[in-house]
Amino acid sequence: MHANNELGVIQPIQEISRIAREAGVAFHSDGVQAAGKTPIDVSGIDLYTISAHKIYGPKGAGALFVRKGTKIVPQSHGGHHEQGLRAGTENVAGAVGLGRAARWVIECGAEEQAREAALRDRLEQGILDRVRGAHVNGAGAPRTANTTNIRFDGVDSDALLIALDLRGFAVSSGAACSSGATEPSHVLLAIGLTKLEARSSIRFSLGRSNTAEQVDGLIEAVVDSVAHLRKLAPAYA
Amino acid sequence: MHANNELGVIQPIQEISRIAREAGVAFHSDGVQAAGKTPIDVSGIDLYTISAHKIYGPKGAGALFVRKGTKIVPQSHGGHHEQGLRAGTENVAGAVGLGRAARWVIECGAEEQAREAALRDRLEQGILDRVRGAHVNGAGAPRTANTTNIRFDGVDSDALLIALDLRGFAVSSGAACSSGATEPSHVLLAIGLTKLEARSSIRFSLGRSNTAEQVDGLIEAVVDSVAHLRKLAPAYA
Repeated sequence: MHANNELGVIQPIQEISRIAREAGVAFHSDGVQAAGKTPIDVSGIDLYTISAHKIYGPKGAGALFVRKGTKIVPQSHGGHHEQGLRAGTENVAGAVGLGRAARWVIECGAEEQAREAALRDRLEQGILDRVRGAHVNGAGAPRTANTTNIRFDGVDSDALLIALDLRGFAVSSGAACSSGATEPSHVLLAIGLTKLEARSSIRFSLGRSNTAEQVDGLIEAVVDSVAHLRKLAPAYA
Repeated sequence: MHANNELGVIQPIQEISRIAREAGVAFHSDGVQAAGKTPIDVSGIDLYTISAHKIYGPKGAGALFVRKGTKIVPQSHGGHHEQGLRAGTENVAGAVGLGRAARWVIECGAEEQAREAALRDRLEQGILDRVRGAHVNGAGAPRTANTTNIRFDGVDSDALLIALDLRGFAVSSGAACSSGATEPSHVLLAIGLTKLEARSSIRFSLGRSNTAEQVDGLIEAVVDSVAHLRKLAPAYA
C-alpha cells in the first residue's frame, strides 16, 4: 500500500521496491489511497494500481500500471480484450471517467491537497486543543492530507461514530472493506496500539467538498460527543 | 451459450440442463446473446449470465444468476463486496444501467423482437431472391430475431465486409471476441461448413435503431457488392 487507508501514512515504496528488486521479486504497490493525495513516482515500481472513485471518478473502474517486461498472467479468460489480459467487453464509460478524473488530479490535485492539509491540521489541532486524552495515530509519519485517525482514551469508537452520525458527520471506525467486522483494526494493532486503543480510534476523511466551517462544526461535535460518552462511562475520568 | 453469437441459433438449454443434472454436473448457460432477444427461463438452470451492453445498457456491467444452493468460488479476493464473491468497489452506475436496460426488455422487448424478426425476414428474403448461391447458415433452427448469417458461394467474406463498409454498412465476418483472427469461424465449421464456406459467410445484426429503409438499402448494397466481387474473381461463375 502506497498510502494506508486507515491512517493515511505514506509508505516508502521506493525503498521497498529496491529491496524487492535486489531479491529478484516483482513489486506491486496498491496506490488506491495515494492517487490524487500524494505525488506518484513509479520509477523502480513494477506494478501499481489506482481506482477511479478515489479521485472523484466513477466507481468500478481502475488502472494497472505494468512496467515493460513485467510478466503478468490474466485472471479471466475468454476474449482477447485488453491485450489478452482481461477478457470481457470494457467498461468504456468508466475508463473515460477515470481518464477525466486523472486529468483533474494533474490540474488541481496539488492545490486541493494543500487546501485539505490545512483543513486536516485545523481539525487535528482543534480536537487536540480541546479534548484531553486525544492522540493522532500515525502522527509524525508522512501522511496524505485527507485522512486523520484520532484515538480518544476511554471512548468506544463505535459509540462515537454513532454520536457523530446523529449530528450529521460520517466518520469511520475501520476500513470500508471490513464493514461488519467486529475485530479491532489490524492496521492499528500493527503500529503497536492495544486492542482497547484500537477500539477507541476514529478515522476522519476530508474531501474536496469539505469546508473550514464544516471542520469547525465537526470539532464542536467531537468535543461534545466525547464529553458526553465519557460521562456515560466514567471509567476514564 | 443460450443463443449463439454468430448464428443467432437458440440452444435447447433446458434439455442440456436436464442431462447435466442427471449426471450431477452444475450447468452454466451464457445468455449474453439471448437476453432481450428471446424469453429466458432459468428453471432448472444453475447459473446464467447476461451483459448489459447487449440490451442497450452500459458496457462493462453484467449479471450472474446463481440458483440457491449452487456453490461458486470467487475469482477475485480482498474485500467482502458482493457477498464475498467479487472483491472491489462495485460499478454502481453500470449496475443501475443494467437494471434500467432490463426493465426496457421487460416493457418493450417482445414488441422489438417481433419488429426485428420482420426486418430480418425482409433482409434474408431480399437477398435470397436476388443473389444466386446465397444460403442462410442455421436456417430452420430456432433463432434470435436480430442475427442472420448468410453464405455467398465464391465470395470472400472479408472482401464483402469491406465493400459493404465502404457503402456504410457494418457487418461481421466472425465473432468480435476473435477480432484479428484469420482462422475460419469454429462455429461455422462445427455446423458442418467447409473452410471455404465459412470464409464466404457474413453475419448481419439488427438493432432497435434499424429501419426497413436501411434493410432495403443493405439488400441493394449486397446485391451490387456480391456481383462486383464475383466479376473480379470469376471462379464462381
